[in-house]
Amino acid sequence: MEDSKPTQKTSNSSEVVVLRWGHRPQRDVRLTTHVALTARALCASGFILSDVEDRNIEKTVNRISDRWGGRFQFQMGIPWKKVVAKWRANGGVIVHLTAYGENIQTSDVLQRIKNAGKDILIVVGSQKVPGDFYSEQVSDFNVSVGNQPHSECAALAVFLDRLFGGEELARNFEKAKMKIVPSARGKTVSSQAEH
Amino acid sequence: MEDSKPTQKTSNSSEVVVLRWGHRPQRDVRLTTHVALTARALCASGFILSDVEDRNIEKTVNRISDRWGGRFQFQMGIPWKKVVAKWRANGGVIVHLTAYGENIQTSDVLQRIKNAGKDILIVVGSQKVPGDFYSEQVSDFNVSVGNQPHSECAALAVFLDRLFGGEELARNFEKAKMKIVPSARGKTVSSQAEH
Repeated sequence: MEDSKPTQKTSNSSEVVVLRWGHRPQRDVRLTTHVALTARALCASGFILSDVEDRNIEKTVNRISDRWGGRFQFQMGIPWKKVVAKWRANGGVIVHLTAYGENIQTSDVLQRIKNAGKDILIVVGSQKVPGDFYSEQVSDFNVSVGNQPHSECAALAVFLDRLFGGEELARNFEKAKMKIVPSARGKTVSSQAEH
Repeated sequence: MEDSKPTQKTSNSSEVVVLRWGHRPQRDVRLTTHVALTARALCASGFILSDVEDRNIEKTVNRISDRWGGRFQFQMGIPWKKVVAKWRANGGVIVHLTAYGENIQTSDVLQRIKNAGKDILIVVGSQKVPGDFYSEQVSDFNVSVGNQPHSECAALAVFLDRLFGGEELARNFEKAKMKIVPSARGKTVSSQAEH
């Protein structure tokens, strides 16, 4: 739990990890679980629940990863300052998602992030975040998914969809025990025999 | 609360309303609030909390609409079957967002929805939805935002972002008392004088 090194990379691609700040056990359990599952489904490589631990979320996320595959890494309890310092030391950039930031639609901020070509730590808040998050000491980019108040879960989804150009929704998840076969009607799931 | 007619249209555009099914007061309050705020921020014209009422959510959504503008209509307590029947009677189509549906990235389902050129009711579940939702009696389209389990809030966000081609994030919200001025650092908000 103490190690915040980037998770394993797929070849030639940058590492993209989501840091969730400000989680309140109990009150936020469902929302934070949704944020973590969104990170996984839209092909971030890992999720860090900073500063606190929540075994319920860990259990849910790991159970889903085990069943549905992929190489998603869940970590928790690491102080956010430590994650940020290590990420910077390793040469990665930090993107803070906030309604106050540069608009992903009306500015060139996404292109600048892509041009940087570096590993990306995406920071999403819950309650009001520390003012530091907006500063150069923490964030390289403050990005808004629209400038209306809404949801960190929604903002993360749109950001990842645009960052990966939609391809994340077509990706195969390795070593899945269960796979959904997309269909116009009903539910079709194929179970993979275990090896 | 009993009237499920479509909310007012902007000129020449289809009506897009989100129906949230399966809300459990208390347990789902934060998540459903996020779904409603996502619908508003990404320019759906309305949100229907079906079958149950939750004054906390109504209050939060209406307070945000009052402060941040726009013409978002919040309704609750209408039976989902009634909403669906009325929507169909008025000639609209129904899109059910589900991990089991046609993949928005790998199929042409979004194009077919757009080609229909009709008002769209987007149905999002919470707990396991009734099997009916997948049938022709309810849904015209079953759409998946990736075929992994994740979040109805995330799925809704990506669906709306793609449906509106990103333009929803640049839209001006009418009669806003507060507006965020996007910025690379810090928080900038302009307050509009009341008229």
